[in-house]
Amino acid sequence: MEKDKEIFQRKDDHIKISINENINSRNTTWLEYVRFVHNSLPEINLKDIDITMEFLGKQINAPLIIGSLTGGTKLGLEINKKLAEAAEKYQIPLMVGSQRIQLEHLETSKSFSVVRKSAPSIPIIANLGISQLIQMENFTSIEKIIHSIEADALAIHLNPLQEIIQPEGETEFSNALEKISKLNNFLQIPLIIKETGAGLSKNVSNNLIKAGIKYLDVSGLGGTSFAAVEYNRAKDQKNLSKSNIGNTFLDWGIPTAASIIETRAVANDSTIIIGSGGIRNGLEIAKSIAIGADISAIAQPFLKQAFNNSKDVESYIETLISELKSSMFLTGCKKIKDLKKSEYVILPPLRTWLDKRLQKQR
Amino acid sequence: MEKDKEIFQRKDDHIKISINENINSRNTTWLEYVRFVHNSLPEINLKDIDITMEFLGKQINAPLIIGSLTGGTKLGLEINKKLAEAAEKYQIPLMVGSQRIQLEHLETSKSFSVVRKSAPSIPIIANLGISQLIQMENFTSIEKIIHSIEADALAIHLNPLQEIIQPEGETEFSNALEKISKLNNFLQIPLIIKETGAGLSKNVSNNLIKAGIKYLDVSGLGGTSFAAVEYNRAKDQKNLSKSNIGNTFLDWGIPTAASIIETRAVANDSTIIIGSGGIRNGLEIAKSIAIGADISAIAQPFLKQAFNNSKDVESYIETLISELKSSMFLTGCKKIKDLKKSEYVILPPLRTWLDKRLQKQR
Amino acid sequence: MEKDKEIFQRKDDHIKISINENINSRNTTWLEYVRFVHNSLPEINLKDIDITMEFLGKQINAPLIIGSLTGGTKLGLEINKKLAEAAEKYQIPLMVGSQRIQLEHLETSKSFSVVRKSAPSIPIIANLGISQLIQMENFTSIEKIIHSIEADALAIHLNPLQEIIQPEGETEFSNALEKISKLNNFLQIPLIIKETGAGLSKNVSNNLIKAGIKYLDVSGLGGTSFAAVEYNRAKDQKNLSKSNIGNTFLDWGIPTAASIIETRAVANDSTIIIGSGGIRNGLEIAKSIAIGADISAIAQPFLKQAFNNSKDVESYIETLISELKSSMFLTGCKKIKDLKKSEYVILPPLRTWLDKRLQKQR
Amino acid sequence: MEKDKEIFQRKDDHIKISINENINSRNTTWLEYVRFVHNSLPEINLKDIDITMEFLGKQINAPLIIGSLTGGTKLGLEINKKLAEAAEKYQIPLMVGSQRIQLEHLETSKSFSVVRKSAPSIPIIANLGISQLIQMENFTSIEKIIHSIEADALAIHLNPLQEIIQPEGETEFSNALEKISKLNNFLQIPLIIKETGAGLSKNVSNNLIKAGIKYLDVSGLGGTSFAAVEYNRAKDQKNLSKSNIGNTFLDWGIPTAASIIETRAVANDSTIIIGSGGIRNGLEIAKSIAIGADISAIAQPFLKQAFNNSKDVESYIETLISELKSSMFLTGCKKIKDLKKSEYVILPPLRTWLDKRLQKQR
Repeated sequence: MEKDKEIFQRKDDHIKISINENINSRNTTWLEYVRFVHNSLPEINLKDIDITMEFLGKQINAPLIIGSLTGGTKLGLEINKKLAEAAEKYQIPLMVGSQRIQLEHLETSKSFSVVRKSAPSIPIIANLGISQLIQMENFTSIEKIIHSIEADALAIHLNPLQEIIQPEGETEFSNALEKISKLNNFLQIPLIIKETGAGLSKNVSNNLIKAGIKYLDVSGLGGTSFAAVEYNRAKDQKNLSKSNIGNTFLDWGIPTAASIIETRAVANDSTIIIGSGGIRNGLEIAKSIAIGADISAIAQPFLKQAFNNSKDVESYIETLISELKSSMFLTGCKKIKDLKKSEYVILPPLRTWLDKRLQKQR
Repeated sequence: MEKDKEIFQRKDDHIKISINENINSRNTTWLEYVRFVHNSLPEINLKDIDITMEFLGKQINAPLIIGSLTGGTKLGLEINKKLAEAAEKYQIPLMVGSQRIQLEHLETSKSFSVVRKSAPSIPIIANLGISQLIQMENFTSIEKIIHSIEADALAIHLNPLQEIIQPEGETEFSNALEKISKLNNFLQIPLIIKETGAGLSKNVSNNLIKAGIKYLDVSGLGGTSFAAVEYNRAKDQKNLSKSNIGNTFLDWGIPTAASIIETRAVANDSTIIIGSGGIRNGLEIAKSIAIGADISAIAQPFLKQAFNNSKDVESYIETLISELKSSMFLTGCKKIKDLKKSEYVILPPLRTWLDKRLQKQR
Repeated sequence: MEKDKEIFQRKDDHIKISINENINSRNTTWLEYVRFVHNSLPEINLKDIDITMEFLGKQINAPLIIGSLTGGTKLGLEINKKLAEAAEKYQIPLMVGSQRIQLEHLETSKSFSVVRKSAPSIPIIANLGISQLIQMENFTSIEKIIHSIEADALAIHLNPLQEIIQPEGETEFSNALEKISKLNNFLQIPLIIKETGAGLSKNVSNNLIKAGIKYLDVSGLGGTSFAAVEYNRAKDQKNLSKSNIGNTFLDWGIPTAASIIETRAVANDSTIIIGSGGIRNGLEIAKSIAIGADISAIAQPFLKQAFNNSKDVESYIETLISELKSSMFLTGCKKIKDLKKSEYVILPPLRTWLDKRLQKQR
Repeated sequence: MEKDKEIFQRKDDHIKISINENINSRNTTWLEYVRFVHNSLPEINLKDIDITMEFLGKQINAPLIIGSLTGGTKLGLEINKKLAEAAEKYQIPLMVGSQRIQLEHLETSKSFSVVRKSAPSIPIIANLGISQLIQMENFTSIEKIIHSIEADALAIHLNPLQEIIQPEGETEFSNALEKISKLNNFLQIPLIIKETGAGLSKNVSNNLIKAGIKYLDVSGLGGTSFAAVEYNRAKDQKNLSKSNIGNTFLDWGIPTAASIIETRAVANDSTIIIGSGGIRNGLEIAKSIAIGADISAIAQPFLKQAFNNSKDVESYIETLISELKSSMFLTGCKKIKDLKKSEYVILPPLRTWLDKRLQKQR
């Protein structure tokens, strides 16, 4: 079947483009407009800094989720295995790539279930697109993909931008919120709603929270741009119209820093916010937590490191942890939650955006 | 007659310069300072998005006017024909280039009337400069040019900047408003007053609305710069003084985004605002409508596409429509008028301009 | 005498450096942050625009003073002659370069008096530095230099920045204001106090106005930088310390736009403000008048043109006049004073500067 | 002993990297956003400007401290000797480099005591890191290093950023403030607390002042970046993780201008503020004093000059003094303290930072 080949092709296209082309948004995360105020007298010992936390009912070693972007192919399996082994070693959570391929091609399950085999004790998050959810009449298949990796939570990713630019995109988003709400009631495990590089707005987050969602992954603008990925694919396929559109929407979205702050502004006490979208080092993890996230997620850089070797994955995790602890040391924070009370200054244009969006006077 | 040759020469000069030289203003439209807030849960189906509307008493398929910049010569006729055929195929309006040449050279009428022959069912807009209007004692000749294309409306373009820089420009603008008002009373069809790349200010728009004008085409700064066009012509003619002046006024004018918002601020319920000036893609059409326009117009890119071939014109229209619908999908807008209620943020310097001009407190 | 040679040498050094080296401030005039609002319906005839005015008791054809920067040498005489002939032809005022050399070297008088011979009917302004004035016991020598060109006014230029950077600079500025006041009482002709590229502040202007001065020439930052000129001279003379200082103070001063507005804020009804410092075209003349100047002055570009030939001087004057009239046409101003009521927007950083300096709320 | 070699190696590494690599922060001091308002009529004689002051009980000739960055090695001794001779000649204070090496290697004392031998009459400041202080059980060794140079004051430098990035860094900062307070009570000479390129915040300064500290050296961001220095060392040692961290924290800190103003905002009448961090010329000394410092310190440029020869050190001091006096002349300041009342404008982003940090309305 033509469509079947397409989906495998797209999976590998995405990896290749991710490694070889510039797929970054021209727009940054705006985290550079969040500036910590240096504390010369932190009054703590770096060794006493504690970044462990509970997440999805398990104890983890750092507020960091590895996002796997892939699965379904041989290459995907190898990458997933390396990432899961590192996640297990460092005891940090992992979110698998979209399991859509698993719904139609049972034989691809191995490329996902390898994750749980390699990482028996950490929180693992299943992952499916909103378009698949909308088309489902019941949630049986969702139970299967959750079961295949013994997932601790399921993420449904919202990707209207990607669906619009992708030549084979599905753009029926009616009643999505209702479907999300039903799924949430049905599931035994927590449901995470995540964006895919364009950011959750305060209105969307508010609607999700009112619908009972407790876990929000903002995935804002500033990192990998699906518009750029699809722009490159469409160009290769000589689909001029789609490639033009990819170019036009290259900077579409809410920068990560703005998205985190907007979501926090409408969150309640039980909301868990995952800060993601273009986060590349431990200082940015610290900033995302300071302005409102509970934990951060990083995906694309891990894909590149795992494409190289396991050593690079481990070294990157260690650097991230070291940079996060350094940021906490230099702001005098002993625990993750102390970052919320740290001193920082927000500069324009992020400040201008927030003044308008959060109706506060400066 | 020397002057006759001149006008034909100028027509072809303009096309050649448009294709070969950089004639863009250094100043942008400032539409990039209008940022839509992404909606991850649009709750609509892309297929249900409806961008049809009524314009000049006819139903059209998209809020988009093709602006033809040419006419009068053989090359002009060919370009006009291609544009009219595409406009008819996609059922969108077309505005012809300045018909001044038709006033003095009846034999050029064919290059304009070809438009109506190729596009029998769409709204077509006749077009004449304010300088010609000012010099007229009666409106007989205007009736003729309207009749020659069975126009649904007449646009009078205001081009004081062009007249000043053009070596043969006419710079008597006294009593222009009175003349416009008289013409408006005389005409059986709607009168559109349009700028030519320097933008309508709130005061000018207000005066025109008070004089009874219902259709305003802002044509702001940010696209083709007539100062740049005339700068290039004057340079070729070794008219050093005029070319210096062209250079000095290269960025003269009100950026398109500012001009739309200023005009909307003084508009009344029956005012129809055409957003134009440097609009190049469907996202910019969506932005111009969100901040106050009812419909957009694009000219210079169509000239380039039509110079190539009809296929390129059609493909460009399709891309524009697709991008406009994508923008509406990503902001959750089902109808054109929903864009008016969409979420967006205005950043400096556009915001600074508006704070000053519209006397609002930020 | 060594010192005699020095002064002639410096005169010619200045011309050579002016022609061959980059002597512009890195800082602009900030006039680009003053943006006129385009008027599409000016309701006037370009031909009716009247830019004549009275200045120093004589009728002049444009609000423009030619600043001669030179004198004292053969080259200076030639340049002065060309500029004076053009000033006479176009009936615009001229200010001669510093006449300090004339005080000590009577034989150089010819290089200045040539100006009056070539321009019998226009306002001519004599020119001397504040350092010379401070050292004088009586004003006899000043009477002589005024008489030598039958000056209509005398300008005393304030140049503390230049004196500090110039290797042979004189930096005794005590009691300068008192001396200025005495001279003002003594003189039969108006006294103009002018800066030399670093701008008059509102406090300095206020003190001068309170001391009875009616003519203030702001000469702000943004054009020729004396720090750059002296930096180049000091470098040639291998005076490392002085050349470092020149570099450090390259951007010292109040940008022209800020200086004009500050001076206007403290001016009274009889104050005449000359807007100068980096003004290069007629649009900038219009802007300087709109924000507070009565007349503009341009010096350095005239030096370059006159170094070439008289034709270039005349062509430059014509372009300036044409651009000024164009600016007035495009803002609907029939007379110079209408520019004061024209619409314009002031953007940051000029706006930020003014908010702070003029204690207004934005 | 391995560790012994290391410390000597690091000392020489630092000098070599300082001379050969780019070790400047990408972030500036933000002093360029402090703009003096030019005074065309200063009403003073440059020769009457008095920049002498009292500092640490001695009369000094300029508000300038030479910071020596080195010591402990042969090269360090030579550099220290040249700097001390110049300091003595111009009668300005000198602060030696970190004397940590002296604590463990008595034989290195000569490289420090040479300073007092060469400069018998000026204020000399001893210098030790906070990490060493924290590890001490009593202050006997501190007395020794003070005695070795007959120091007029002791500086304890806070360097949490450096300790974190340095491969052999010590990152126990608990109870630092208490230890500082005890040392302050113990010492017979004044205690200076200084940062090392990341700036004192208002909270840190406030805590130090409340603990009885009278001398604060802000050492803000904008000059030499220890992150850059350690980044280069770590790279040479192929310590990838540490070099990544160096890169991530390259711009960490409070810009010097912001740090001076924050510290002044919490200072009391007896607080002496040393403005340092990226100050490179006399205009910047003047600005730092105008916004709140009492005296400035410059280190890295002196290291480079002394590496060349004594003549360059002297010439640099003369230029700094000349530029400082020039700045005072051009703002009409006769004495150092007059700079506090001089006119200046603070532009964004420094202004935005201060609006947020000092809770003032603009």
